[in-house]
Amino acid sequence: MDRRRFSRVLAGALGASALTPDGRYPFVPRRTPPIQEQPLIDGARLHRWLREMSGFGARADGGVDRVAFSDADLGARAYLRSLMEENGLEVRVDVVGNLFGRLPGASSELPPLWVGSHLDSVPAGGNFDGPLGTLGALEAVRTLREAGIRLEHPVDVVAFVNEEGGKTGSRVLAGEFRREELALVSASGFTIGEGVRRLGGDPDRLGEGRVGPGEVAGFLELHVEQGAVLERSGFQVGVVEGIVGIRRWTAVVVGLANHAGTTPMDQRQDAMVGAARLIEAVNRVVRAIPGSQVATVGTIEAIPGAPNVIPGEVRLSIEIRALEMDRIQEVMDGIRGEARAIGDQNRTPVQLHEFYLSAAAPTDERFRRWVEESAEELGLTHRRMPSGAGHDAQAVAQFAPMGMVFVPSVGGLSHHPEEYSRPEDVEAGANVLLRTLLRADSELD
Amino acid sequence: MDRRRFSRVLAGALGASALTPDGRYPFVPRRTPPIQEQPLIDGARLHRWLREMSGFGARADGGVDRVAFSDADLGARAYLRSLMEENGLEVRVDVVGNLFGRLPGASSELPPLWVGSHLDSVPAGGNFDGPLGTLGALEAVRTLREAGIRLEHPVDVVAFVNEEGGKTGSRVLAGEFRREELALVSASGFTIGEGVRRLGGDPDRLGEGRVGPGEVAGFLELHVEQGAVLERSGFQVGVVEGIVGIRRWTAVVVGLANHAGTTPMDQRQDAMVGAARLIEAVNRVVRAIPGSQVATVGTIEAIPGAPNVIPGEVRLSIEIRALEMDRIQEVMDGIRGEARAIGDQNRTPVQLHEFYLSAAAPTDERFRRWVEESAEELGLTHRRMPSGAGHDAQAVAQFAPMGMVFVPSVGGLSHHPEEYSRPEDVEAGANVLLRTLLRADSELD
Repeated sequence: MDRRRFSRVLAGALGASALTPDGRYPFVPRRTPPIQEQPLIDGARLHRWLREMSGFGARADGGVDRVAFSDADLGARAYLRSLMEENGLEVRVDVVGNLFGRLPGASSELPPLWVGSHLDSVPAGGNFDGPLGTLGALEAVRTLREAGIRLEHPVDVVAFVNEEGGKTGSRVLAGEFRREELALVSASGFTIGEGVRRLGGDPDRLGEGRVGPGEVAGFLELHVEQGAVLERSGFQVGVVEGIVGIRRWTAVVVGLANHAGTTPMDQRQDAMVGAARLIEAVNRVVRAIPGSQVATVGTIEAIPGAPNVIPGEVRLSIEIRALEMDRIQEVMDGIRGEARAIGDQNRTPVQLHEFYLSAAAPTDERFRRWVEESAEELGLTHRRMPSGAGHDAQAVAQFAPMGMVFVPSVGGLSHHPEEYSRPEDVEAGANVLLRTLLRADSELD
Repeated sequence: MDRRRFSRVLAGALGASALTPDGRYPFVPRRTPPIQEQPLIDGARLHRWLREMSGFGARADGGVDRVAFSDADLGARAYLRSLMEENGLEVRVDVVGNLFGRLPGASSELPPLWVGSHLDSVPAGGNFDGPLGTLGALEAVRTLREAGIRLEHPVDVVAFVNEEGGKTGSRVLAGEFRREELALVSASGFTIGEGVRRLGGDPDRLGEGRVGPGEVAGFLELHVEQGAVLERSGFQVGVVEGIVGIRRWTAVVVGLANHAGTTPMDQRQDAMVGAARLIEAVNRVVRAIPGSQVATVGTIEAIPGAPNVIPGEVRLSIEIRALEMDRIQEVMDGIRGEARAIGDQNRTPVQLHEFYLSAAAPTDERFRRWVEESAEELGLTHRRMPSGAGHDAQAVAQFAPMGMVFVPSVGGLSHHPEEYSRPEDVEAGANVLLRTLLRADSELD
């Protein structure tokens, strides 16, 4: 029996409440319909919603300019709100402007399950990053409602505020937002404080928005991968292991600025040559350790920066991402050792100053399993993978168990007008979301 | 007999007109006094002049701000003019503002010998780059005059205009100056055209300034090395083999910009890694070929240039300098081959666009020999070496045989307020200048 068939049979067996080998009753889902009765989402409707959503901030090239707090963002939110209301959800806006649409649950005791994402885009962004997770969630909930399936938990479809400009909405809920950020000017031209007001929030009451442990049963986010791992490896569904941690350093390679004509090669302390060796070392060290961690040198500056002057200093950024913070440390230790050797050999010492840290947020193992089981039921191929990009789920993980589902991004392209995910993948992702939601409702408190 | 003593004896023998081994008469200097009678320059006076010159544009840190056309530059020129007049030289200013002070020669038929340098500095410059060669020349000529030694050729002490800002004065004489340059704003704030007027020149008549072949018998320039070759190798005098040629390219490393979090290491086309390998290759190739050529990567820019984006393009400058243009080509051919290999291996092709060329200017072999002989007579150690920096002599080489003498720069420091050459080295350089002038007068037409 192949693994997929076995898994389906096992799921059916669990539904039938057989004893486990150790003689205990297995977990029995509460009121979840048997798999063969579980409904499928309506792909045509989801695509229509996505198409209509792409009208808010539409660009001539097919992409969107829908940065948070812009008129396009307000329009998109109003549209989502009307869809929520049409579909019988109870709408509310919280202190930071996050939009919630609730399908009530059977139990009045249980905390809500959240499912959603965001609607705002980067400047010159695409049509899937955010809306897929928000509208996919709405379509899943609508499907449940139309099928007359009532979950135990209330379910909130959520659209978080300003994901692209710093995860404002989800970070307020997690208590990670700092008041100083209110004064930052967002891509819309409004400060974040002004923006929050535009969305119906109240920047003076953000503290009240904080969500405590146990207040939310769980959170599930469907998203486009924004990379090409699924496409290249030929899988349909990504089971997200977590959102990687990020640390960033500025490396300062210190040489001696000198005349490029009068300084013989063997008398140079050339910071550019030191920097080149450091970049190569970053690339070598991160690849030498098994795993999915990545390291990137994205910025570089040579001082003084003239074709006829040997650089006396080169500054560059080193960013490392990994699912475990220890792995980041391990990579950095390796780089640090190489940097010392390069400094000694080239007479260009390297200083390393950390300037950014974002902690890793692993997904809940139960959510990973439910996503896998849902994909199996639907006959979809799946693989576990990290999310290299940040998501609202990262902040929500601070107060609730969370899971994420990825669907393939064609060409790995994202934050780009040509960002695209195939209709069949979008549909598959929403169906996985729906089934994972049913499992979570059964198994979470 | 050691080499130095042998050389002195030989020089004496030549002065005494002995037959050479092959039975011909050796060259007999015209009226040059025997070595033992040749005067020495007055070091104390030269140092006083240098000190007084450093008052024009003096900075609190001991350096000078005396960019061409500034009031400080005008003051320095007026001071030199007064010294020329005090010392009996016939002063003239040419169409571009170059200042000449002539000691008449015995022959009315012979073209003049030129000896000199410039007075202008870079912003925040030092006290030796330029004034040493100009005041050293004046001191040499004053010494001749006081000793009652009349040369066959007229000798012109020359101070060229705006060396640091583009060798305006010497390039007008060589016919290399382009009219468009008149509109360029110099570091003084004046356009070059306005500046030329300030110095008493006439920008509308620059064409008349051009000097034809044969109009100048030869040119000799004393200068600080501006590098640390002499100091590190322990020599007192540099016999300049020529001014290196320079070619500059922009290298464009073309990758694919992508998300630094979602793109696995093995799927990247990282232009930064390609650039790092190219920089290392430039350094490796130029060192692998024997010789004094140098190559420098002085500027670099990553696009888009964010810590969390894999650079899609990196642009950097490659400068190569060598005494022979063929050598530059050889180095570039090597780099080009490496760039192709890096492009193929890393999937980041490299484009190379040349944007600057300055032809090499070898010194006249006779001048090199005379400088060496003069140094030998004076008991000074000497070595041949290229000039990695540009000088007025480079332009003068277009119409007259030329030679250059280098004295050590302490720490190799130049274009800097702390630029310094030791008094004994300054004095030695001026004495070499004087004796080389005597030899040139004897042997040049």
